[in-house]
Amino acid sequence: MTTAPRALPSAVPAPAAPTAGAAVRLRPVPLGAARTTGGFWAERQRANRSRAVRTGYERLGSAGNLQNLRIAAGTATGEVRGPVFMDSDVHKWLEAAAWEYGREPSEELLGRIREVTALVAAAQAPDGYLDSVVQVRDGGERYRDLPWSHEHYCAGHLFQAAVAQSRCTGETALLDVAVRLADHLVATFGPGGREEVDGHPIVEMGLVELYRETGERRYLDLARWFVDARGRGTTARGGDPTYFSDRVPVREATTAEGHAVRAVYLAAGAADVAAEDGDAELLAALVRQWEHVVATKTHVTGGLGSRWDQERFGDEYELTPDRAYAETCAAIGSVQWAQRMLLATGEARYGDLVERTLYNAFLPGVSLGGDEYFYVNPLQVRSGAHADEERSAVHGRRGWFDCACCPPNVMRTLSSLDAYLATSDGGGVQLHQFTACRVGADLPGGRVELAVSTDYPWDGTVRVRVEESAAGEWELAVRVPGWARGATATAAGRRLTPEPGEHLRVRRAWAVGEELVLVLPLDVRVVEADPRVDAVRGCVAVERGPLVYCAEQADVSAPVAVDDLRVDVATLRGARAEHRPGLLGGVTVLRTTARRSARHDGGAPLYRPAADAPAADAEGEGFGIELVPYHAWANRGAGAMRVWLPRA
Amino acid sequence: MTTAPRALPSAVPAPAAPTAGAAVRLRPVPLGAARTTGGFWAERQRANRSRAVRTGYERLGSAGNLQNLRIAAGTATGEVRGPVFMDSDVHKWLEAAAWEYGREPSEELLGRIREVTALVAAAQAPDGYLDSVVQVRDGGERYRDLPWSHEHYCAGHLFQAAVAQSRCTGETALLDVAVRLADHLVATFGPGGREEVDGHPIVEMGLVELYRETGERRYLDLARWFVDARGRGTTARGGDPTYFSDRVPVREATTAEGHAVRAVYLAAGAADVAAEDGDAELLAALVRQWEHVVATKTHVTGGLGSRWDQERFGDEYELTPDRAYAETCAAIGSVQWAQRMLLATGEARYGDLVERTLYNAFLPGVSLGGDEYFYVNPLQVRSGAHADEERSAVHGRRGWFDCACCPPNVMRTLSSLDAYLATSDGGGVQLHQFTACRVGADLPGGRVELAVSTDYPWDGTVRVRVEESAAGEWELAVRVPGWARGATATAAGRRLTPEPGEHLRVRRAWAVGEELVLVLPLDVRVVEADPRVDAVRGCVAVERGPLVYCAEQADVSAPVAVDDLRVDVATLRGARAEHRPGLLGGVTVLRTTARRSARHDGGAPLYRPAADAPAADAEGEGFGIELVPYHAWANRGAGAMRVWLPRA
Repeated sequence: MTTAPRALPSAVPAPAAPTAGAAVRLRPVPLGAARTTGGFWAERQRANRSRAVRTGYERLGSAGNLQNLRIAAGTATGEVRGPVFMDSDVHKWLEAAAWEYGREPSEELLGRIREVTALVAAAQAPDGYLDSVVQVRDGGERYRDLPWSHEHYCAGHLFQAAVAQSRCTGETALLDVAVRLADHLVATFGPGGREEVDGHPIVEMGLVELYRETGERRYLDLARWFVDARGRGTTARGGDPTYFSDRVPVREATTAEGHAVRAVYLAAGAADVAAEDGDAELLAALVRQWEHVVATKTHVTGGLGSRWDQERFGDEYELTPDRAYAETCAAIGSVQWAQRMLLATGEARYGDLVERTLYNAFLPGVSLGGDEYFYVNPLQVRSGAHADEERSAVHGRRGWFDCACCPPNVMRTLSSLDAYLATSDGGGVQLHQFTACRVGADLPGGRVELAVSTDYPWDGTVRVRVEESAAGEWELAVRVPGWARGATATAAGRRLTPEPGEHLRVRRAWAVGEELVLVLPLDVRVVEADPRVDAVRGCVAVERGPLVYCAEQADVSAPVAVDDLRVDVATLRGARAEHRPGLLGGVTVLRTTARRSARHDGGAPLYRPAADAPAADAEGEGFGIELVPYHAWANRGAGAMRVWLPRA
Repeated sequence: MTTAPRALPSAVPAPAAPTAGAAVRLRPVPLGAARTTGGFWAERQRANRSRAVRTGYERLGSAGNLQNLRIAAGTATGEVRGPVFMDSDVHKWLEAAAWEYGREPSEELLGRIREVTALVAAAQAPDGYLDSVVQVRDGGERYRDLPWSHEHYCAGHLFQAAVAQSRCTGETALLDVAVRLADHLVATFGPGGREEVDGHPIVEMGLVELYRETGERRYLDLARWFVDARGRGTTARGGDPTYFSDRVPVREATTAEGHAVRAVYLAAGAADVAAEDGDAELLAALVRQWEHVVATKTHVTGGLGSRWDQERFGDEYELTPDRAYAETCAAIGSVQWAQRMLLATGEARYGDLVERTLYNAFLPGVSLGGDEYFYVNPLQVRSGAHADEERSAVHGRRGWFDCACCPPNVMRTLSSLDAYLATSDGGGVQLHQFTACRVGADLPGGRVELAVSTDYPWDGTVRVRVEESAAGEWELAVRVPGWARGATATAAGRRLTPEPGEHLRVRRAWAVGEELVLVLPLDVRVVEADPRVDAVRGCVAVERGPLVYCAEQADVSAPVAVDDLRVDVATLRGARAEHRPGLLGGVTVLRTTARRSARHDGGAPLYRPAADAPAADAEGEGFGIELVPYHAWANRGAGAMRVWLPRA
């Protein structure tokens, strides 16, 4: 066994690393070739490594996940604990730990990885089956309740973890377990076998990754079979097929519906299948679904899911801020889906959504400290909101949950975040996300190495310096976000005209030391929603760069509840950006003024006669408020907060 | 056995019939002394009797409720079916049938009542315990999971049914069962016994009714004990106590919270206890809670409950139209609570809420035909809304539900509706709800008999004629709704000045043939919500008399989706009321015009830059629309509908 990362031609599985035969426009750069070097995301990664991955191991111990594996292995006795998908938390942690090891080897981490991997391996049944809860509970009957048992879901996470471990540590202990389990699945399900699919997708993504790692086509075939088996109501077994994305076949669907995480995981897996098979019909269906979700079912933060009830997407335009579900896992799944669409199509709009979602829907799910989590990410919390259910944000972030899907999902996402930064297409390098980093790629003319320096998202200047260059011409492409009207750029000193929503492409014989400098205007942007979004009628949201801002009670200078703030669009647009190194780990706040609702009259009845013309709803003098990035909210207590602010 | 109704000094249990010792301002008139004679509610009662109660019996058969009882009795074999509270549907149906029998004896109905009563009696255990599902499932262990088992809940409904049967048929078969069960509860729970309370209140109301019927104080004592045991987290057993109204003792609570039906049933039972014991502290707590619910947590329809997730009240001002839960059973519980508060205090505002809730939150729960039901009553359905969960209104009303609490609850409410019409206080008679009816009462000076004629709610004139009068002076009081600004009245030809929100009281030596005529102005009223109700910002609702109106797609003359209607307040206020006998069983529609949203531009992104000043949001010419009473919606298909209409 070796403890050094293998140098692999393809890269990390989240996002996908399509095989040589796949029909994709862009490919991930090799493992380790894109690395954050400092700044915003590197800080988050540091906290993730030093706090979250460390405490995650402890929480897998105290919550019973590791003990469940021991019980299944027969090395411990007792009842298994927790929900049916307890193993998946272990697999996600193993995946996160593997990426972390890949980023920076550590004997301590490797010891933990080996220890947990051994527990997983010991629990596996002789024929390859593995799910500790099912193995122990209810007499060990397998696939008895596949709509709810998450047996394939756990397998999918195991496959992803195994691929990460193989690539990052060079050790194959977990990959051996994964291959045995995958072969068991191939023998049991699909053509000639059981014609059922798991209630919760992800095995599709996992199987494609396993195919990419092992070259065994049967795994890809089973993934495609699972994608195509869906949409015939078989999963729901007479229940509501919508919930399981089982109402309409993936190739025919026009939207994502039902349980949000299930829906986007399925779409991401289908995108993997479409890419590997060059399946244009499937890809076109996914483009259509993605466009519909972005146009009608996406919160301004990028968050997905409007209903607490069964964690669902709602109807079109059903995007209520206070009851937004916007599960952290749904944001992660959305990033995975969009990144696969970016690879398949090369289109910048997918990178735009990855950016919006990472900053404003994924990142709010974890505390600045790195190891406390939101499951649900509302866009509004009222003063005096009551903390009831465990998942309610009103409690503040939590160290773990009874249903702990989100915490280790956050860990593996932060530890594999480098994979979202850049791609290569043979003819050049594409930079998609902006943070201080180094990016390398092997082009036909040789090795290219780039150094990116930026204080993004606080500053809009992104400087890409060629540190090593290939022979002849090659193209350096940089995503220009759709919001970046007025962006400017120079390449080797020459002025260019970036087009928002496209990649800025500069093809030349780049010399070492030359720079592409992109300047994104970080003006304060005030946005409103389509009027069909009833829940935010008369309200605006504030953005700057890639960040959505919010008002928290702590930043209101007057004795006025956040609920009663009234804003003026022109005033907001003139808000002063001020970087505050001491606040919330260092954030740029927006200083502006607001007024108080004129109709905040406690004694009036809840419903009252309406005047002919709507009265202006503000009284008194303006007072100072500061808006903070939404992702940083609830790090000073989880009090009243609003993303959408009513106009005066 | 006799089949003639007993003449009882006290009246029906829904609302309460306090004992002679109770501290109440008003008392129900005797059983049968208030009777609808025609018009709006009489038609609903006819459909309820001829359709709902009849098909209800059949559905109890096909859904397995009756078979469950046979299995528990040992006269049939097999598995019991359905949720744990299946017996309660039987009890509710028995209650409805008893009231119907009391309103008009029928041998067929009595035969059914006896048949079903015999099934219930046969299922009862020798020691009085009764819950067919628990008796058969899981080895018959009792009270193993009281937070969820609904064992006391089923008992409470049985008590109410037994009292109704005793009063209306004179037969005591069900009362004997109830007494045996109640004595078992007294022996098992309370001081010196098990210190647990059921997760779902109603046993409190049921026990107080049983006390009123039997005079056995131990039932009242146990009811009080259950009320006071709540709020200590014991029900929740470490889970979320809010859901069970178990977070704060009833006497200390300042609001109703958690599961809406549980909360209002508990409050109604506590109001019964407060009345019987003259418990001013408890009553004051209930007044405080009721005021807070009305001021912050009540939909404009009177509906309660904002969250599908666990059927809960939301936070203050969390009143989203599209995701309003507004369960039909919560409306029924709210009516029961408010009516008990009316009896206790005599205040007209409670009658106002009963009226609003009966017309606009209870009645939408049943089809015009009388035997199809809504479980959930949203205030908005979007075009293209997806019908997913069984309870979704997008499916339209249904004949029954897997969880069938609402249908038989509707039946018993319509069959006991007469009880909400009028009260007496010794010094006179109070008329609270307006419909063609006769009301009798025994006053110190003798018998009083009133005939009420009105076409309410379509017409605002209410004519109360004295048909029989007591000697000397007595007071005739009529509730003047809070919305009725400009109401006029005459008493025996003399002009009076009614005060909205109060009772109009006329004390005189009423002669036979004299009339009190109240004229309520049925102007179209356009209302808006407190600005803290974020979900309806910029919208208005339309009311006329006691009715809330809505727009349904069928009544829009232009090819414009209901979602895109834009209205002008002055135009709405000038809407022309037109009675349409052929429409929806005969309703008064409001004819007006609307315009179309100017920003309905399909191609624009979901979020877009906001202009400095909000643009007027209407384009093109006005076109005709008709608004229909909300209670009548979804009788022509359950398509797009809105109660809250955005301003242009």
